[in-house]
Amino acid sequence: MQPKKFSIGIDIGGTNTTSGIVNRHGEILVEEHIKTADYATPAHFVKAIKACLESHINHFGRDEIKGIGAGAPNANYYTGEIQPAPNLPWKEVIPLRQLLEDAFDLPATITNDANASAIGEMTYGAAKGMKNFIMITLGTGLGSGFVANGQLIYGHDGFAGELGHVIAVRDGRLCNCGRRGCLERYSSATGIVLTAHEMLEASTEDESTMPENWLLPIYKGGAEITSSGIHKAALEGDPTATAIFDFTGRILGQTLADAVAYTSPQAIILFGGLAKAGDFILEPTKKYMEENLLSIYKNKIDIIPSGLSERDAAILGAAALAWE
Amino acid sequence: MQPKKFSIGIDIGGTNTTSGIVNRHGEILVEEHIKTADYATPAHFVKAIKACLESHINHFGRDEIKGIGAGAPNANYYTGEIQPAPNLPWKEVIPLRQLLEDAFDLPATITNDANASAIGEMTYGAAKGMKNFIMITLGTGLGSGFVANGQLIYGHDGFAGELGHVIAVRDGRLCNCGRRGCLERYSSATGIVLTAHEMLEASTEDESTMPENWLLPIYKGGAEITSSGIHKAALEGDPTATAIFDFTGRILGQTLADAVAYTSPQAIILFGGLAKAGDFILEPTKKYMEENLLSIYKNKIDIIPSGLSERDAAILGAAALAWE
Repeated sequence: MQPKKFSIGIDIGGTNTTSGIVNRHGEILVEEHIKTADYATPAHFVKAIKACLESHINHFGRDEIKGIGAGAPNANYYTGEIQPAPNLPWKEVIPLRQLLEDAFDLPATITNDANASAIGEMTYGAAKGMKNFIMITLGTGLGSGFVANGQLIYGHDGFAGELGHVIAVRDGRLCNCGRRGCLERYSSATGIVLTAHEMLEASTEDESTMPENWLLPIYKGGAEITSSGIHKAALEGDPTATAIFDFTGRILGQTLADAVAYTSPQAIILFGGLAKAGDFILEPTKKYMEENLLSIYKNKIDIIPSGLSERDAAILGAAALAWE
Repeated sequence: MQPKKFSIGIDIGGTNTTSGIVNRHGEILVEEHIKTADYATPAHFVKAIKACLESHINHFGRDEIKGIGAGAPNANYYTGEIQPAPNLPWKEVIPLRQLLEDAFDLPATITNDANASAIGEMTYGAAKGMKNFIMITLGTGLGSGFVANGQLIYGHDGFAGELGHVIAVRDGRLCNCGRRGCLERYSSATGIVLTAHEMLEASTEDESTMPENWLLPIYKGGAEITSSGIHKAALEGDPTATAIFDFTGRILGQTLADAVAYTSPQAIILFGGLAKAGDFILEPTKKYMEENLLSIYKNKIDIIPSGLSERDAAILGAAALAWE
């Protein structure tokens, strides 16, 4: 029997859900989008995804489709359920795998979005051929997937890889999880904005002498400070923006130095909105990680940007789950 | 062909080296001891181990022996070498696997002592049947082995699992590794003595009113404070000793709460000299770990003492390597 040619990938986000059909080379053949919050129940939501894909499945041939992979916040690989997720419109435990299998009559696998990204990166991206790496998604929060011995570490209950909730600063900033000092309160799109607010609030400099596209004049003018705005200001030579990236990279680099001592990876792959700032975030992260590494790990571990485009990564990661 | 019945386990420590022949049920059939530092070179050392075991090997039958497993400080599973180890008498890189294979004409596998303990615990001890757990050895230092998906995590280069060198207290106590705040400077036989010195030095209490087997009178009398001495004082109701265990368990528990977020284990197994203090160390470790856990991990993870006697664990762990 020939191996099946296609798989279905579904990336479920708080705002948008993207689904598509992918081949074994990582080419996305069709892609469909719906708004996650438009649906009153998970069952209606799954029905809508099916409606989007039905004609494509018939076109490519149902018998040629290996299965469905879905990445979603708080999705558990073992149980097939989504635990109550603050970012999703439905607050109950969602039996997503079962809903998908019933709707599509195909085998389904689900995992959280960070793990899906790690599998996508290993199957199609920057981690191709790697057996030990850490995948980090610097989005609204900080997600992570740890691969060791060529396998994703799910842990006993499917909840491994919560690097975003490792304590980076003891008694530090209050996190949504109710604890203090979690890494994602510092090193994420949300975290860098918190740092910017702290630094800008504490600034004693005179903004009237600065170019208007620097952060202090923007902040004093009452405009919103965003992760991409900080990147723009850094590109304009704003030293405050550079200092904000330096601090963000310091906290991330220090924590990664510890993360390395757990799994001794070949590489750490950075992905997500904040990673788009390129060297502004990569350089301080590398520098502080190296400074803090135990000597046996020094000068060995690459920190590299994702090999997949932001647009494609989530759906490829989800689709890659179905090949496993 | 029948599976072979025996394996050879070798536990190499800075002071003593124990070797023996073990069966598949974890029974140690013979055991031999030599002093590690008595031998000028690693080759002489391996020759001495062979001389100890030769007649036993002939007795049990060379053809019935599956292979050799050895645990040693800084031993690397992948390269088969011991990296320069502060606790060993020889300062060069030691091609231990090759030396063993040449001397015995049997296949050999080596790993560091903490990883060997993890494999021993999984094969014969408290982690039998577990696929995800963390093994922690609280000895002179703090060693660790992480098992995920039923496999030991060696990492890209064989150096994974250095929990003793995760930063538990940022800018904390100076460690032998040259960095500050490593977990093993707090939570190990060495670390608890450092804590005792700090607390006793800072004490403003009057030791003359205390029982003479409490720590402050012992310390003021100029006697050495040891890990087992702190345990004894705690048994005598010394509140300072209890406070020392509480602090040691707090630092360990906080760090374990982070460790759980990496690999989401079913259990954490404690072994080694300091673990012998039983509930004095287990209770605060559990308490502070639970207090610091992300909610999805709360009340799920057992912290349990090793299922193997201290005397047997190292050699069983080493021998278990040979079955893999």
